[in-house]
Amino acid sequence: MPSKFRWNAKQRRFVERARVAHLATANRAARPHLVPICFVLSSGLLYTAVDLKPKKQAVPDLRRLRNMAENPRAAVLVDRYGENWKRLAFVLLHGRASLADDREARRAIRLLRAKYPQYRAMALESRPIIKVRLTSAYAWGAL
Amino acid sequence: MPSKFRWNAKQRRFVERARVAHLATANRAARPHLVPICFVLSSGLLYTAVDLKPKKQAVPDLRRLRNMAENPRAAVLVDRYGENWKRLAFVLLHGRASLADDREARRAIRLLRAKYPQYRAMALESRPIIKVRLTSAYAWGAL
Repeated sequence: MPSKFRWNAKQRRFVERARVAHLATANRAARPHLVPICFVLSSGLLYTAVDLKPKKQAVPDLRRLRNMAENPRAAVLVDRYGENWKRLAFVLLHGRASLADDREARRAIRLLRAKYPQYRAMALESRPIIKVRLTSAYAWGAL
Repeated sequence: MPSKFRWNAKQRRFVERARVAHLATANRAARPHLVPICFVLSSGLLYTAVDLKPKKQAVPDLRRLRNMAENPRAAVLVDRYGENWKRLAFVLLHGRASLADDREARRAIRLLRAKYPQYRAMALESRPIIKVRLTSAYAWGAL
């Protein structure tokens, strides 16, 4: 299904180049949750693995999945910080999060391993892959 | 009012040393919003300025204030990313966000200017200062 999501090349490049982003979700009661993520983009979709990087983790990792099940609304931020505040920038994405199906997950894992060599030795196949269907982008600062 | 919030010295140090954090809020409809923030800590409180760093911005900046008014629940994340994934770490804080009153704002501005020389030339006095009363901390990874 083609996405109606649109952004410009500069915004896309800024996000694509980033090694880390931040994913915010919220439960039904509007309690926000927030985690750093590794991610890849693929035509209006953003994929991220619920990995075990590097230790086992319990609650917060499950929380993003519970939140998604209750409320698919998600925000993803890619930003650059530095002490020269003239160079600050971010791209804020909104979208709808869900679990990737098997076919999507296989594709996402290939893309994640191409971007992050660290993933090549990890058994991502047994982990949930989150898909965020992007709906809007807002850019600020010196992209 | 003393806070019941507790964290250990390692978690606190990790957060205190960070130059940037991420603040997630959500509106009543549980739509998450997410921005990078400069911040200071002061005994169970975290302060951040709604500054104009460096350009004027409209919607997203107001959104955090609108969300706060509708729903005080907030999450703040401080994390370290690097290509050696054995060194990844984060501290996730939850709390309740509100606008600082004048006295608190003056104190927060002093602390912000001590931590960030960039703020010394900015008219923070005319900007809203957000206060997050911290309620919980969760730490992960190699703090």
